[in-house]
Amino acid sequence: MNTYSSKLLEEAVNELSKLPGIGRKSALRLALHLLKRNSMEVEFFGNSIIQMRNNIKHCTKCYNISDTDICEICASKKRNSSIICVVEDIRDVMAIENTSQFTGLYHVLGGIISPMDGIGPQDLHIDPLIERVKNDDTNEVIMALSTTIEGDTTNFYIYKKLKDLNIEITTIARGVSIGDELEYADEITLGRSILNRTPYSTKL
Amino acid sequence: MNTYSSKLLEEAVNELSKLPGIGRKSALRLALHLLKRNSMEVEFFGNSIIQMRNNIKHCTKCYNISDTDICEICASKKRNSSIICVVEDIRDVMAIENTSQFTGLYHVLGGIISPMDGIGPQDLHIDPLIERVKNDDTNEVIMALSTTIEGDTTNFYIYKKLKDLNIEITTIARGVSIGDELEYADEITLGRSILNRTPYSTKL
Repeated sequence: MNTYSSKLLEEAVNELSKLPGIGRKSALRLALHLLKRNSMEVEFFGNSIIQMRNNIKHCTKCYNISDTDICEICASKKRNSSIICVVEDIRDVMAIENTSQFTGLYHVLGGIISPMDGIGPQDLHIDPLIERVKNDDTNEVIMALSTTIEGDTTNFYIYKKLKDLNIEITTIARGVSIGDELEYADEITLGRSILNRTPYSTKL
Repeated sequence: MNTYSSKLLEEAVNELSKLPGIGRKSALRLALHLLKRNSMEVEFFGNSIIQMRNNIKHCTKCYNISDTDICEICASKKRNSSIICVVEDIRDVMAIENTSQFTGLYHVLGGIISPMDGIGPQDLHIDPLIERVKNDDTNEVIMALSTTIEGDTTNFYIYKKLKDLNIEITTIARGVSIGDELEYADEITLGRSILNRTPYSTKL
């Protein structure tokens, strides 16, 4: 498309445009922005990304991203190790941690079962989850996956593997979002939220 | 906002979120994408940006970005060196080159006069333009700046400096965009396009 006046610029634009959601026009804008920053800043920028890729670890227990072999959450004495919350990726760990409502441990699957994208159970950290539940002192597994068909499929697959292990298996509540007007909630969500109604409480 | 489970991840997200138009959520998404790519690819990514910043040059004649002291356009024997097209930044050079309608040389100002952003004439490559026009064999200077107040101010400033030098000074045509319906064109553009009407031609 473009005739770049510099091979160095062209290469940087090529690389930047490989990022998800960044087209060639945005990539050029980012490259020109980086050119205006001072040399040390840009070196720090590039190196921080390389360092991250080369030195980051995944917790050997829960597969969360970590700088150590066992992540801070798994290593903490303050967390309730009898509850494991199963999530898709580390962004979900962050989102749940931000609520400050959960004090158990996590298990990061690294994705969800999605035949369309060629992702099967063997591509996810499901077997280590089963081992963990079998060997550790687990009372409850909370399934906290997306409320999509893929999420439901993954829930069901894991449920089948865990159901004979004498532990409680729960899923996160599905219902009308807080702050939403009822008339705009979709029918399936609204229907489910009536079926799964909870005792009235003045606490929340 | 977030509690990152890894300092390395946090640092990379910090750096990525310094890019224009990239917030912390997008930065995290980019960082996780980079983590999934293989190590060599990510090193190439980071280094291509560092290389660009450290090794790129600006053409000493027209201030276009270049890998050499004189850019390919200025060095080319095929270009008409008697016409200089004045543009704001190198993206404009690319845009005009893509039209294949211009065979002269460029002069990249590096911005436009914008008191709001604290950019005055002394921050732009205006003096070197005047020197170039005085010393080289220039017949025409085409002002190809944005059709904004800042662009008009810059046009006028440069016009005043060039007007006694016995060269032709032109600006790019302003009018209704090709493919636009007349009723949606703004009044100022439409008014100007009637005043500056051109002889009918079947060529375009």
